[in-house]
Amino acid sequence: MGNGKRIVVALGGNALGRNLPEQMEAVRHTAVPIADLIEQGYEVVISHGNGPQVGMIQEAMTLLTRAHPTEYVTCPLSVCTAMSQGYIGYDLQNLIREELRNRGIMKDVATCLTQVEVDPKDPAFENPTKPIGSFLTKEEAEKLVRERDYQVVEDAGRGYRRVVASPLPKKIVEINTIRALVNTDHVVIAAGGGGIPVFRTNGNHLKGAAAVVDKDFAAELLAEEVDADYLVILTAVEKVAIHFGTPDQKDLDSLTPEEAETYIREGQFAKGSMLPKVEAAVKFAKSKPGREALITLLDRAGEGIAGKTGTRIRA
Amino acid sequence: MGNGKRIVVALGGNALGRNLPEQMEAVRHTAVPIADLIEQGYEVVISHGNGPQVGMIQEAMTLLTRAHPTEYVTCPLSVCTAMSQGYIGYDLQNLIREELRNRGIMKDVATCLTQVEVDPKDPAFENPTKPIGSFLTKEEAEKLVRERDYQVVEDAGRGYRRVVASPLPKKIVEINTIRALVNTDHVVIAAGGGGIPVFRTNGNHLKGAAAVVDKDFAAELLAEEVDADYLVILTAVEKVAIHFGTPDQKDLDSLTPEEAETYIREGQFAKGSMLPKVEAAVKFAKSKPGREALITLLDRAGEGIAGKTGTRIRA
Repeated sequence: MGNGKRIVVALGGNALGRNLPEQMEAVRHTAVPIADLIEQGYEVVISHGNGPQVGMIQEAMTLLTRAHPTEYVTCPLSVCTAMSQGYIGYDLQNLIREELRNRGIMKDVATCLTQVEVDPKDPAFENPTKPIGSFLTKEEAEKLVRERDYQVVEDAGRGYRRVVASPLPKKIVEINTIRALVNTDHVVIAAGGGGIPVFRTNGNHLKGAAAVVDKDFAAELLAEEVDADYLVILTAVEKVAIHFGTPDQKDLDSLTPEEAETYIREGQFAKGSMLPKVEAAVKFAKSKPGREALITLLDRAGEGIAGKTGTRIRA
Repeated sequence: MGNGKRIVVALGGNALGRNLPEQMEAVRHTAVPIADLIEQGYEVVISHGNGPQVGMIQEAMTLLTRAHPTEYVTCPLSVCTAMSQGYIGYDLQNLIREELRNRGIMKDVATCLTQVEVDPKDPAFENPTKPIGSFLTKEEAEKLVRERDYQVVEDAGRGYRRVVASPLPKKIVEINTIRALVNTDHVVIAAGGGGIPVFRTNGNHLKGAAAVVDKDFAAELLAEEVDADYLVILTAVEKVAIHFGTPDQKDLDSLTPEEAETYIREGQFAKGSMLPKVEAAVKFAKSKPGREALITLLDRAGEGIAGKTGTRIRA
């Protein structure tokens, strides 16, 4: 039944919602365009963000340590990310499975708990920028800096927040598992929240890193590693634009990696928002002839792959 | 390299510890006898309990809801179980992988997020007995009974606790995924915490159940469904005993399912402790000729399978 083409889909925050009831509703909606792609015969691997979810879990674990300081130590961010993969994967695999069965498609849907290796020498560790978790008092912040080597920033009078690095993903530890599942006709959910970031320390030990891998870069690496034909980055706009939010705004239908790189140099794309998506798309489009990246709205994924909308990046 | 024999191992609480630092240490220790079995050529599937871990997560999520009542609703127990599979699976897959690589064994280790179907008509739902989460005040307990249909018990003056049902597992939703991974030479971690319990409601929808499936029964079903040769239930004693804790205590080396059933009828095994282990062992030993169940200490798993210790149940 397959059409022989493989897609890695990167789901953004709007595909998942920010809390429990929102997530259930959002994922029910997300399952429909995903099932459309599967029904059209594509092999689909799904990656997803976890910003609000890992924030929620870290906040809960922080409250637990505060309430029971002798019983529970601070929960490492890597463990919070592992929990978020369980939390989000459960809803995704469950509701995609249901949507497929409602269409008579009996494919299996699986969540693969995924670690992603990062480089301890990644320059991102010298300048952590990604805020994580809730606001802290000055005293709490100072204690964490002193006792746990945290880095914190003050946020415009609202208090202090921990910041962590967002290093590039170097290797997907469970890539053989993901390939085995794709090759046995599974819809696979993997590298959730960018993957659980780990360092390879001495020999074979993998140590959880206090970091968050950008989910678009993790999805890009995943797409290369499963030899996907398409990397589809789903976000809150239908097309990538230059001169965004000005009278000169111009939506882009198609661009080459070189054109995209020119726009990147011009500073056309917002840091931490559209920029990593375009960078990931360029990297994928350049990784092998014939590979194509698409950035569009979740609901337009199918039309986008058919060439009817979205912004495609290809050589 | 395989010897053609397949083992499902059920890890008890002592294999995992009760909090973050304990779990890291305990799992590092647990990885050794597991790797021994793999080195001997067995195909190993691992299931595990999650009592302290799901209790920790539920307590953290309860504190989150208390601190931010307008932002976060109460986290369903099924979601807490999904998070615990991520949390425990991460440590298990990581440290087993490391132990194998230290021995030059390059096998992949994967955690499969697992749902287990339970029957809404299971008599366990009429009489929930399993305490979950932290102590509640009378007011909190009454609010949860009123607003969320919880069942609570008063615990000897220490406050109120929620109790949930422990129904039997009927079906492992992700069984095809588990089989695909075993058949592609993976060490698989599955049905953690007894699996995420779900009801099949109308048609294809699976709804999270406010329940906890006994991990020994879930491991037994898993062992039947992957056509295992051995079900190894690891616990805090080397052998099952009758007249336990009395001067007449007699440790058992080997017994038939019928002998075990006689001892069960005599009330020889403690409810919620040794009883479900013996019941699960009997069910597995009766499920197909040649199948054998073993109950012993984690560190004696290899010797037990070799027939040197533990209690074996076989027809």
